[in-house]
Amino acid sequence: MSGTSDTQDVEAWLDERSDAAVEELKAFCRIPSVSTDPAYKGGIRQAAAFVADRLTRAGFPSVEIVETGGHPAVVAEWCDVPGAPTILVYGHYDVQPPDPLDKWTTPPFEPDIRDGRLYARGISDDKGPVMIPILVAEAFSRTRGALPLNIKMIVEGEEESGSPHLVPTVARLKDRLAADLVVSADGAMWRADLPSVTVASRGLLALDVTLTGAGKDLHSGRHGGSAPNPVRALARMLASLHDETGRVTVPGFADTATPPDPAILDAIRASGFDPAGYFRSIGAPVPDPLPSAEDLLTRQWLVPTLEFNGIFGGYSGPGTKTVIPASAGVKITCRLVAGQEPEAVRAAIERHLEAVTPTGYTLTVKGHGPGSAAFALDPDDPALAITEDVLEGILGARPLRVAMGATIPIGAVFQEHLGAPMVFFSFSTADEDYHAPNEFFRLENFRKGLKAWARLLDRLASDLRTGA
Amino acid sequence: MSGTSDTQDVEAWLDERSDAAVEELKAFCRIPSVSTDPAYKGGIRQAAAFVADRLTRAGFPSVEIVETGGHPAVVAEWCDVPGAPTILVYGHYDVQPPDPLDKWTTPPFEPDIRDGRLYARGISDDKGPVMIPILVAEAFSRTRGALPLNIKMIVEGEEESGSPHLVPTVARLKDRLAADLVVSADGAMWRADLPSVTVASRGLLALDVTLTGAGKDLHSGRHGGSAPNPVRALARMLASLHDETGRVTVPGFADTATPPDPAILDAIRASGFDPAGYFRSIGAPVPDPLPSAEDLLTRQWLVPTLEFNGIFGGYSGPGTKTVIPASAGVKITCRLVAGQEPEAVRAAIERHLEAVTPTGYTLTVKGHGPGSAAFALDPDDPALAITEDVLEGILGARPLRVAMGATIPIGAVFQEHLGAPMVFFSFSTADEDYHAPNEFFRLENFRKGLKAWARLLDRLASDLRTGA
Repeated sequence: MSGTSDTQDVEAWLDERSDAAVEELKAFCRIPSVSTDPAYKGGIRQAAAFVADRLTRAGFPSVEIVETGGHPAVVAEWCDVPGAPTILVYGHYDVQPPDPLDKWTTPPFEPDIRDGRLYARGISDDKGPVMIPILVAEAFSRTRGALPLNIKMIVEGEEESGSPHLVPTVARLKDRLAADLVVSADGAMWRADLPSVTVASRGLLALDVTLTGAGKDLHSGRHGGSAPNPVRALARMLASLHDETGRVTVPGFADTATPPDPAILDAIRASGFDPAGYFRSIGAPVPDPLPSAEDLLTRQWLVPTLEFNGIFGGYSGPGTKTVIPASAGVKITCRLVAGQEPEAVRAAIERHLEAVTPTGYTLTVKGHGPGSAAFALDPDDPALAITEDVLEGILGARPLRVAMGATIPIGAVFQEHLGAPMVFFSFSTADEDYHAPNEFFRLENFRKGLKAWARLLDRLASDLRTGA
Repeated sequence: MSGTSDTQDVEAWLDERSDAAVEELKAFCRIPSVSTDPAYKGGIRQAAAFVADRLTRAGFPSVEIVETGGHPAVVAEWCDVPGAPTILVYGHYDVQPPDPLDKWTTPPFEPDIRDGRLYARGISDDKGPVMIPILVAEAFSRTRGALPLNIKMIVEGEEESGSPHLVPTVARLKDRLAADLVVSADGAMWRADLPSVTVASRGLLALDVTLTGAGKDLHSGRHGGSAPNPVRALARMLASLHDETGRVTVPGFADTATPPDPAILDAIRASGFDPAGYFRSIGAPVPDPLPSAEDLLTRQWLVPTLEFNGIFGGYSGPGTKTVIPASAGVKITCRLVAGQEPEAVRAAIERHLEAVTPTGYTLTVKGHGPGSAAFALDPDDPALAITEDVLEGILGARPLRVAMGATIPIGAVFQEHLGAPMVFFSFSTADEDYHAPNEFFRLENFRKGLKAWARLLDRLASDLRTGA
């Protein structure tokens, strides 16, 4: 594919206005729309209104702030190109909490540009990326008087809280949101130095496990040796969930998991991933023997996990307290791969824990919500090839098809409720500290993103089959 | 021995003032003298001053708050009976931490009487028992104008922290503390329904173990499967410290332990201990199969233990947080039997933990003080027979000689540094939740304790040989 394109007029229009667009990004980022903390409720409402207003000014004829039972979603439609395909763009206006505040070089809600990077909470995840398609739709309308295809948008306000109201909202607005393809403006490129496209992400299942012995904490001198110690028993039980290499050994855990897409294994081999560098980057001792790049990335992307997120029981303060704890607990999250059903996995873990609970103890397993299945895009979906073409044109190399260890619940949601495939098309990068202090967005990628979305809409308009 | 005694005058004086004495106990318990937590430093100083003041008001001519390098000890002497034996009374004014606060029916430092029980943190261990000899000395002085024998007292402030400064303090004050017998007001009767006297107690060793993986908490989606998880690794390591029956499997842990005194095994067989009743009494499910009484009591009194007092790492709040913890830790205390050296046991555990630490993690093992060896009283010591006589007179039956699962480090300390034997003479009972919420002291036992100490002092005055 050549470096020229049929959207030069649109790209030029956007280029001329890119300084103004950056100012708009800054205004958006000044709104503290933290979804996990009720203290920021005002910021949430303000951000939803900002998005709705910007969509209206871009030209969307239908824009609505939709109540969901939680934070509102902004839904917009611009569907006046008969016979053309319809895409639904997904994004979110809420952001992660800014803590720890003292680690920010400039305040999280006072955007600052340094070295070509715009620093602000939420700029990379997802305020920068979600503004791009809005600006591009506006550019098409102003330069050509019409969009090349039909565009719908849903911009939610609860992504950083696990999107608790997204499923019922999408189910309820099923007809209104119907599309031939969902394009996610959320998600991130894997690495700044390597073009990639995300084709799979792991699902999520969360459990709380509690083991109880005596009815109250006991004196470890008087009762030590004779009373049940839930920390001791729980440690033995937890030790039975993995083998010594960390592989999950729960019977039935991964029986239905489907083997990974060979294209992703190819990407792993082509990635030049450095295992020792990885351990250094997370501040951990470099293990000896060192796992291979292939082993490490396979475990990070393609193998289901059972991770302990926290453990607790008895006394944890300074000094000593000679108690035998009445109970001990552990918080577990599993990342699931394609083919694993969250409910079946939960049942397998509970069954195994029950089987290994020693006599004299009481086990409780509590799930947090229904969990979410893994997402995997059909490797032969033509929309995927189109996005790869566009990225190659912009970035100069064919992107690698990569998986993502983390969970993007929306992939499975749209597949299930709208019957539409989804592609990720985001120009943020996974190193932009979007869950940490000093979140930033590379302005060069913002400009590339504007061009790329213009070309994507044009290509989809001509090449995407419509389901109508 | 008959129910009458030669100390009826003293006992009657105490009886008349027992309501006022209970008010004094309440005042003492309002002082939050938690020794393990620096936040309570003010309470520690206040409690030491309370004890010193009460000793002075009782009539002790010499009372001093002695600096130890840690929390101070209160040392008092009242030695004006030439030719009479001298006893040293031991007790402590510090208390266990009150957590978990929400489990207390009334606040831990607001004493409350319900059903003949005084509820407060520290009332049973050891504020109630240590007040008894002070009140009794005062009663002798007020009724007879003189004590029947010479009394010294040492009331320390670090018992619940493992008495880290007691050994140097006793060694330094060796001449001033010299006595024919040490009587401990700390310790507890085994059961409320069975007179007993403690002739052996287990030693103590406390360790904090920390295992670290990455330099900070990591996102469990992005890093799950590839990053070290210290909770997972620690659970496996802890599972290697015991076999499935709870017996310690650390190499070298109990190699030097000496076999138990046959008299104690006799007491176990004579005790009519009910295993199912034991598990019900602590609110635990009754295990199946049920251990025998002999097995259970042997493990509680005579077998060294390695108990986990607390475990912690990562997120333990409500809901879920998808992190991989940077570190996880466990608090361990061991109860040691005769023949085990605390330092050797510590080294054996550390060696074993190092051997089972997987690659890619950093282990830290930190001891809390030097630990304390087990204590065993000479079964033929005449002071033991005297205490048994007095208890039989008060309680109506000859007490069983029992061992104690818990630790009273001072037994070995006084034997070594003062060359004096020690007997336990406490009227708290081991079921009084003294390391748990809702600690209480039976006021009936408080009154029995006052009588018993009066008779004990009288008997020791006439029958104890002096070393002078």
